[in-house]
Amino acid sequence: MKKGNLLLAQSGGTTAVINASAVGVIRQAIQSKAFDKVLCAHFGMNGILKEDFFDVSSLTDSQLDLLAKTPASAFGSCRYKLPNPCDNAEIYSNILEILQRHNIVCLAYNGGNDSMDTCNKIAEYLAKTHYPCNVIGVPKTVDNDLVGTHYCPGYGSASKYIATTIEEIALDTAVYEKGRITVCEIMGRDTGWLTAACSVACKAERGPDLIFLPEREFDVDKFLTQSEQVYRKKGHCLVAVAEGVKNANGYIGADEKLDSFNHVQLGGAANKLCSLVSLKLGISTRAIDLSLPQRAAAHILSLRDQQDAMLCGKHAVELALRDKSGVMAAITFADGKTVCSDIPLRQAANSVKSVPSEYISQDGAHILPEFCDYVLPLVEGEVQLEYEYGIPRYFDNTKLKKFI
Amino acid sequence: MKKGNLLLAQSGGTTAVINASAVGVIRQAIQSKAFDKVLCAHFGMNGILKEDFFDVSSLTDSQLDLLAKTPASAFGSCRYKLPNPCDNAEIYSNILEILQRHNIVCLAYNGGNDSMDTCNKIAEYLAKTHYPCNVIGVPKTVDNDLVGTHYCPGYGSASKYIATTIEEIALDTAVYEKGRITVCEIMGRDTGWLTAACSVACKAERGPDLIFLPEREFDVDKFLTQSEQVYRKKGHCLVAVAEGVKNANGYIGADEKLDSFNHVQLGGAANKLCSLVSLKLGISTRAIDLSLPQRAAAHILSLRDQQDAMLCGKHAVELALRDKSGVMAAITFADGKTVCSDIPLRQAANSVKSVPSEYISQDGAHILPEFCDYVLPLVEGEVQLEYEYGIPRYFDNTKLKKFI
Repeated sequence: MKKGNLLLAQSGGTTAVINASAVGVIRQAIQSKAFDKVLCAHFGMNGILKEDFFDVSSLTDSQLDLLAKTPASAFGSCRYKLPNPCDNAEIYSNILEILQRHNIVCLAYNGGNDSMDTCNKIAEYLAKTHYPCNVIGVPKTVDNDLVGTHYCPGYGSASKYIATTIEEIALDTAVYEKGRITVCEIMGRDTGWLTAACSVACKAERGPDLIFLPEREFDVDKFLTQSEQVYRKKGHCLVAVAEGVKNANGYIGADEKLDSFNHVQLGGAANKLCSLVSLKLGISTRAIDLSLPQRAAAHILSLRDQQDAMLCGKHAVELALRDKSGVMAAITFADGKTVCSDIPLRQAANSVKSVPSEYISQDGAHILPEFCDYVLPLVEGEVQLEYEYGIPRYFDNTKLKKFI
Repeated sequence: MKKGNLLLAQSGGTTAVINASAVGVIRQAIQSKAFDKVLCAHFGMNGILKEDFFDVSSLTDSQLDLLAKTPASAFGSCRYKLPNPCDNAEIYSNILEILQRHNIVCLAYNGGNDSMDTCNKIAEYLAKTHYPCNVIGVPKTVDNDLVGTHYCPGYGSASKYIATTIEEIALDTAVYEKGRITVCEIMGRDTGWLTAACSVACKAERGPDLIFLPEREFDVDKFLTQSEQVYRKKGHCLVAVAEGVKNANGYIGADEKLDSFNHVQLGGAANKLCSLVSLKLGISTRAIDLSLPQRAAAHILSLRDQQDAMLCGKHAVELALRDKSGVMAAITFADGKTVCSDIPLRQAANSVKSVPSEYISQDGAHILPEFCDYVLPLVEGEVQLEYEYGIPRYFDNTKLKKFI
C-alpha cells in the first residue's frame, strides 16, 4: 500500500460501541505508522463529499480510552444512500477526486447493511479506476442482522441494556396484586435479535411472559388469548414485542410515513397492542417503548462487545495494510474467543440475517433456552466507567481538531 | 414499648431504593432485639387487611445486602386510599383487630404523599383507641414532592438514571447534520423535580436544550418558537418535559381516564408536543417517554440515595423504640452529611413540595445552575452490583417465608 492518509467514516444509526470501533481503527492506524494522517469524516459520507474532516492523528491514549466508552458517533453520522453508478456517475468521480486530493489510501466505513452497500459501491468503483485506496467495511449495528459475522458490535451492549431493563420492568410490573398487561416495544424492524435478548432475563427468572419477533407472522387473536391467560393466572403480564412485528396486512405498528430509505416508519406496535387489549379484554395496560436508550446506553456496556468492536476496527486496518479491499471485517468465535476474519462487502451489503427458527418456540411466543448459548457470551462483562457529577463522563467531541 | 412484632408495609409506586428502606427497617428491627418477629405485609395495605405477611426475621446479612440493591417492592405494593373513619368505621376496627391479633407493636409504612395520609389516619385512630402500636412513616417517592424532608429516598437514584439517560440521548440525537426535535417525557405529575434533574447533564454540557416543569404554565406557542430557534441554530433540539406540564386548559398530555385516586391519567405530553411540532413547524420529531425504568433502574443506583434510604428505615425503627408515633422519618442535611429527623405525619400527608421558583429561569425553559448545588449530592456515588448472566442479580422474593 502506498503511503498516505486513512479516512474513517461513521454511518447509519448509532450504537453504544460505535466509537470503540473507531478507536480500534484509529489506534491501529497510529501504531502501525503506515499512514501520514488519520482522519475522520464529519457526518460520515456527507463529510466526505464536503471534504470536512477531523484530524485524530494525535489523540492520546487516555482520550482514546474515554472515546471507546462513549456512545453515539463522536464524528457525526449520516443516512446516505449512494445511488448506483449508472444513475449518478458524477458523485463517484467527485468521491474519487476528493480521495485523491487528500491522498486517502484507506477508507474505513463503519456501518450496517445499508452502509455496507455504500461501502461496496465505492470499493467496486475505485477498483475499476485503479486508484490505490483500500476500502474496508467495519461492522456496526444494534440490529445484529449483518450476514457473515458471528454477531455485530453494538448488539452485545444493546442486548445487555435491554435484558437489564426488561428485568427491572418485570420486577416493577409485578408489585401489585392486580396489575396490568404491559407491552414493551424493542428495536428491530426486520429481525428480532434485540427482542430475543430479553430471554437473558427469562434465564434469571425475571423476564417477559411472552416474546414476539418479526420472524413469525403476528397473530393478534392469539396474542390476546395468550396475554389474557397469563394475566388471569399471575395478575399481570409482561410482553416484549419487536417494533417490526407484522401480519399479512403489514406492520402492526406502521404509520403512513416513509424514511429516507423508503422504509416504512415504525414505532407504535406496543401502543396499538395496548389499545387492542383495552378494547377487547378490558384489562389495564401500559405501553413502553425502550426507544433510543437501547442503542445509546453506554453506562451499561458489555465488555465483550466493546472489546470486539475495537478488535474489528483494528482488524479492518490490518486488512488494508495487507492490501485487501472490498471486504468487511467480521467476527468468528473459536473456543469462545473472538477471532477476526473478513467477508466480501457485496456479501454483507443489503443482506439480512434473521433469528434462526430453531430459537423460537412452536407457539411463536417464547425464545428457547438454546438462544442463551448464543447471546450470553455477548452480554457478559462490564466496563468500568468514569463518573463526573454523578453521571458517566463521556468524550468531548467539541474540542476535536479539524483537518485543514 | 411493649414487646411484640414489627410490621412493615410498602405502598404506592415503586422506586429503585424502596427495598433499601425496607432493609434499614428490617436490619434495625432485628439488631435491636426489641421485637419478637419482623413481618412484611404482602401487597401493602391489602396484605394487612388479608393478614398476609412474610416473616423476614431470619433474613441473612447477605440476603439483606442483595435486597438493598433490588428495585421494586419485594414484598408487593398497593394503591390503597384509606377512607375517612367517619365514612367507614368498620375498616378501622378491622385494622385494629388484625394488629392486636398479630401483636403488632410497630407499624412502619413506606410510601409517598397518599401513603402518608393512610399512615396518618391509622396513627390517629390507634392513638384514640390507646392500642399501643407506634406508627411511623418511611418516606419514599421518586417524585421528591414530600414536605418536611430535604429530599426523598428514590429521588436520587431516579435522578441519576434520568440525567445519565438524557446525557446519552443528547449524544445520540446530535449525530446527524440535520436532526430532529426530540421531546423526552419525564415522570412528575405535579412537580418537576425529576425533570429538573436533567440539569445535571447540562452541567456536563450534554443536556437538553429546553426543560419544562409543571411549576410554570406551559405556553405552547412559546415552546414552538423556542424549540424552532434551537433547531435552526444547531440542526437538532432536545426538549425535556415533565409529564404534568399544563396550561389553563389542563394537562398537555391528559386523556380522559382517571386512576384509582381520581387523578387524571397522563402519559402523552411528548407525543402531543411532537404532533404539534410536525403540524406547525414541519420539522421531524421523536417522542421518548422514559417510563417505568425511571423508577426501576437499580443498575445505576445513587450510593447516597441507597444509603439514605437505609438510614431513614433505621431511623423509623429508632423513633418507634423511643415510643414516638404518628411521625415520618425525614432527612436533613448538615455539612453535606445526612442527619435523620422526624416530622408529624399529618404535615407530610397530602402536601406537595414544588420546585422553588428561584431554580427556574425567567423564560421558564431552563433550570438555573443553582439547582445543581441541591441535586448533585443526591446523585453522586455508585453502588457495586453483582452480575449473573451479564445482568444485575436481584433479590429473589419467590423464596420468602410466609408468616403463619
